[in-house]
This record gives sequence, structure tokens and C-alpha cells, in this order.
Amino acid sequence: MHQEVTTISFLVGTWRGEGKGEYPTVDPFAYEEEIRFWHDGRPLLFYEQRNWNAASKAPMHSETGFWRPREGGAIEVVLAHGFGVAEIEEGEVHGRRFELRSRSLASTSTAKVIGEVTRTYEVEGDVLTYQMAMSYGDTPLTHHLRAELRRA
Amino acid sequence: MHQEVTTISFLVGTWRGEGKGEYPTVDPFAYEEEIRFWHDGRPLLFYEQRNWNAASKAPMHSETGFWRPREGGAIEVVLAHGFGVAEIEEGEVHGRRFELRSRSLASTSTAKVIGEVTRTYEVEGDVLTYQMAMSYGDTPLTHHLRAELRRA
Repeated sequence: MHQEVTTISFLVGTWRGEGKGEYPTVDPFAYEEEIRFWHDGRPLLFYEQRNWNAASKAPMHSETGFWRPREGGAIEVVLAHGFGVAEIEEGEVHGRRFELRSRSLASTSTAKVIGEVTRTYEVEGDVLTYQMAMSYGDTPLTHHLRAELRRA
Repeated sequence: MHQEVTTISFLVGTWRGEGKGEYPTVDPFAYEEEIRFWHDGRPLLFYEQRNWNAASKAPMHSETGFWRPREGGAIEVVLAHGFGVAEIEEGEVHGRRFELRSRSLASTSTAKVIGEVTRTYEVEGDVLTYQMAMSYGDTPLTHHLRAELRRA
């Protein structure tokens, strides 16, 4: 493991759990989720997330990319989203807590245009929780997702 | 498999092979590579690529994301690159040949800024070849990578 990655190595592994989504434009929904972090010796973590509807088990959202720890507790996250968005988030690592904000959000010709995203990740023991807020259309930055996962 | 994906289902599987890189700003290099495409029933393919130096076997580039076939032979590719770039490419599928051009390239605060990218992928039987060109700094769109992979 690269030395720079040791500051976020507590993420490495497979996490599974449940989340709830809400937003002014959609009905509230419940989902199940798996997140994986792994490494190959370079100063980054590979990241893969997928979730599915808690009732029907149908796949919902998938995202994949890289978490890049930088100097001074900074973190850069590069993401590809299955619904047609390429995103960069940046923020800070405070111990086992990450505060991230979108730096760039780009959509394909046919995908939804997201305005802004913030995310908070926190690991306590074998539990990872995150919250995500976004702005979309006429809706300002508003809470969207909260999930709690356990190390598998 | 989702019906829309059947137009590019010939990509599904694991591909391994060798490539060569060149660019005015770097020494020519040789690499080995693995590319995987898979699906989960939705109208997109999951994509994962990684390569490593042919001599030292040290990991070089990794990218991951989604290939989204659209109506009329259009294709959208959403990519996260390990070196800190989030990219959207769009183009067309002509039989087993893809012509892609970057629609959006965003870099993290500490990553290189790429100007433009074009890629061509072609599958003939069990052989996948691609070529990639990019503009970077003062260098206009210039050939960078060529690789040939076989179905594993």
C-alpha cells in the first residue's frame, strides 16, 4: 500500500447496507447497497458502488472511480455515474470523516444535469455512513440520500 | 441483457493484450492491458480498464465507467481516470467500430489538464484494437496510444 493511502486505508474492503432516498421531485425510496474500495500500490483507492431497490431488487444507481488522498488532508474523488454524469468532488479528510463538494459535474447529451453535490462519509468501527445532498433544476442544495453500511 | 445493449454486446467479456504509447512530451513506452465489459440488465455496459508497464509490470493507467448506447447508433461513454480526470466521450457505433470524441474533460485541482481526446475502437472476431489521440498543453490533437487485445 502506498504511504499516502494509509491515511484513508480504513476505507479498504467491502461494505454492505441500506439507505433511504428523498427529494422534492421523487417519492421516498429505500435501497440496499454495496461499496468496495481496493488498491494496487499507487497513491489512490479504486472505488465501486452499486445499489438496488430494497423491495424489487432491481439495480438502481452505479458509480465507480478513484479516491485520491493529497497533501494536507485533502482528498480528490473522480467519479463516473451510470446515469450519464462524470463528476469530480474535492474536500477534506478529518480523521475518519470526509467532507466532499462537487468541483465539476458534466452530463452526457441525454443525461440529467445536476447542479451541485455535497457528500459526507464517516467510518466508526465497522460502520460506514454517508449523506448526500444535491441541487437539481429549480431545487437548491437539498438532502437526497442517507445510508449505513457494515464491513462485509 | 437489456435490448439496447445488444447493439454493443460484442464488447462483453475480458480482453488482454499489448499497447504502445508515444507523444511529443514523453519517451515512447510499451504496456500490457486488461479491459473488461459487463452488464446487469440495464441499458449500459460497465467498463474497467487497467494497464501496466510491459517491462517493470508497474501499474500505469486505470480508467473505469459506463458505455451507454443510445438511439440511432449513438454511444455515450462516462469515464473516471485514476490520474484525476472525469471525462465524457460521445460518438457513433458503426457495426463493430466506435468513433468517440470528448464532450467534457474535467481535472482535479492537482491533475493534468487534457484539451481534447478522440478514440477509435474496433472489434474483429476475438481481437479488439483501439487508438487514442489527445491534445495537451501546446500540443494539438496528436496520436498517443494504440493497442491490440484478444478475448481472454
